[in-house]
Amino acid sequence: MDIAALHERIRQTIDTRTKPPGSLGRIEALAAQIAALQGTTAPSMTRCTLTIFAADHGIAHSGVSAFPQAVTQQMVRNFLAGGAAANVFARTVGAALQVVDAGVAGAPIAHPQLIDQRMGAGTANFLEEPAMSDATAARALEAGAEIARAAACDALAFGEMGIANTATAAILAHKLTGLPLEELVGRGTGLDDAGLAHKREILQRAADRVPGTLPPNRAMAEYGGFEIVMMAGAMGAAARGGRVVLVDGFIATAAAALALALDEGVRPALVFAHRSAEAGHGALLDWLQARPLLDLDMRLGEGTGALLAWPLVQAAARMMTDMASFADAGISGGAA
Amino acid sequence: MDIAALHERIRQTIDTRTKPPGSLGRIEALAAQIAALQGTTAPSMTRCTLTIFAADHGIAHSGVSAFPQAVTQQMVRNFLAGGAAANVFARTVGAALQVVDAGVAGAPIAHPQLIDQRMGAGTANFLEEPAMSDATAARALEAGAEIARAAACDALAFGEMGIANTATAAILAHKLTGLPLEELVGRGTGLDDAGLAHKREILQRAADRVPGTLPPNRAMAEYGGFEIVMMAGAMGAAARGGRVVLVDGFIATAAAALALALDEGVRPALVFAHRSAEAGHGALLDWLQARPLLDLDMRLGEGTGALLAWPLVQAAARMMTDMASFADAGISGGAA
Repeated sequence: MDIAALHERIRQTIDTRTKPPGSLGRIEALAAQIAALQGTTAPSMTRCTLTIFAADHGIAHSGVSAFPQAVTQQMVRNFLAGGAAANVFARTVGAALQVVDAGVAGAPIAHPQLIDQRMGAGTANFLEEPAMSDATAARALEAGAEIARAAACDALAFGEMGIANTATAAILAHKLTGLPLEELVGRGTGLDDAGLAHKREILQRAADRVPGTLPPNRAMAEYGGFEIVMMAGAMGAAARGGRVVLVDGFIATAAAALALALDEGVRPALVFAHRSAEAGHGALLDWLQARPLLDLDMRLGEGTGALLAWPLVQAAARMMTDMASFADAGISGGAA
Repeated sequence: MDIAALHERIRQTIDTRTKPPGSLGRIEALAAQIAALQGTTAPSMTRCTLTIFAADHGIAHSGVSAFPQAVTQQMVRNFLAGGAAANVFARTVGAALQVVDAGVAGAPIAHPQLIDQRMGAGTANFLEEPAMSDATAARALEAGAEIARAAACDALAFGEMGIANTATAAILAHKLTGLPLEELVGRGTGLDDAGLAHKREILQRAADRVPGTLPPNRAMAEYGGFEIVMMAGAMGAAARGGRVVLVDGFIATAAAALALALDEGVRPALVFAHRSAEAGHGALLDWLQARPLLDLDMRLGEGTGALLAWPLVQAAARMMTDMASFADAGISGGAA
């Protein structure tokens, strides 16, 4: 079946379910996206895995976060113990969860459930030098792709943990999109006014180190984070495998922008889950012409927003396969 | 414990979970609401029941809907067979579902799973006379309350089915709130421009029959629907029983407005689930100072929006009980 015929059959399937046409709004649009991605009018959407990529950032040493760098490692242990918000939300919505050490500072954590893909003990400080080498960036992309290919699920949600990674996401998005840095820099986990002013100043100096916008391969090596680059690689591979990619908040959206800059073909797989309260997210979403499903003033990261969107994705797919049609149910059509 | 002390302990419990304070946004506010309602810092939110109230409306004979009246009964059969959107969404989010015949036109439906609380074969046409007697309205309120008291669950979601019930909801909301009728009248299941103009004209004439705003007992008898009055009774009883009430779209919000007009004390239990695409919902929500959790351009009714909010309610409660605290997890506090 050609693409146009498939899209027409998907539309017909949605419009003949027992509801006024269009009355499920964005759930219908989501259903059409999922069905087209799977190339069927009967999409299957039963398993979701959240992968949390954790890494540290050299820029943290320039004082751009309200929390100390040690928290990255502490939170990885919290994920492994099941006590973080992402664990609780994953259990609530029936998603699996796995954690990747993409390059957390300090001694490596030994834990049977932790996926070891350490690219180093945190990135270099991009205020002074490239965050990582070109070779490391390429390796991180491929490590992410491998993790996505290995996940047995219909939808992949991605989360992150990394003290100072809103700083990294802001500058990376700035270099990829050309959006003004001031629109992309926010308070992260809770900077006060002075902290925010300092973060802006530091990031402007860092951005001036390599002037102008940059192609994705340069941007990710100069200003990337291990977890962000790895997530972009994972998003690309998941999308190319025909699987739904649930994009979380500001940092995950920066990773999506990188994945799109590397390969615009990943676009049909992306489901933007929520609008973060982090200041830069709105600007970046607008630039990507993305309209997220949820808007709950959340700004935690970890994939928490992506997880809360998973039931909506399931409901959309099941609307197509489990609902009766007007003909099946013997229901009179509308006059409209 | 007095109320102020309870609220302070709830706030402390939320703020010491392993996340930056406030970073779960509206999920935190929802958690605080649920905890206060249950009078505990460890709320339990495991079971949700959707009750769909179905009834017909005399005003349908004045041509205010895109669908024929027979669809109400056909859709009741669809709910009982498990094929409607509400069934599919209920299964997706793990909610129970029950259907009440509150007064569907035609011969009564015999089905072992259908709850029979028929107040008649549809209301009278409020263009010409009161929709129901005062005694019937009181009986519908009490029948709803009884259904709510019998439901074994922590949260009650309410849905409805009834051809022409956006017309009833619009005029009832108008009479309760004094909001202009034109702000409350929309296309329902899909009226075209001419149909909408006719609906507006009919409802203006009906509103002129008993001029001015009305107290709730008068408004519900003159302009109510059996399913709307019964739902208001159920909302009141659920709230007084300390249970969460998930308010669906425009029609359920009109029922909530009636429940609040009868007893403002139900307010703390109300969780407004979603913003419907039906034109009048925004105005009514604003009047109620309610900010729904979801905004997905849906306008189906049946409780579909309420069901999609149920995972958020569960996540909020479990955030309080299942997440580690900073102290438990040995995590460094923020500088903020």
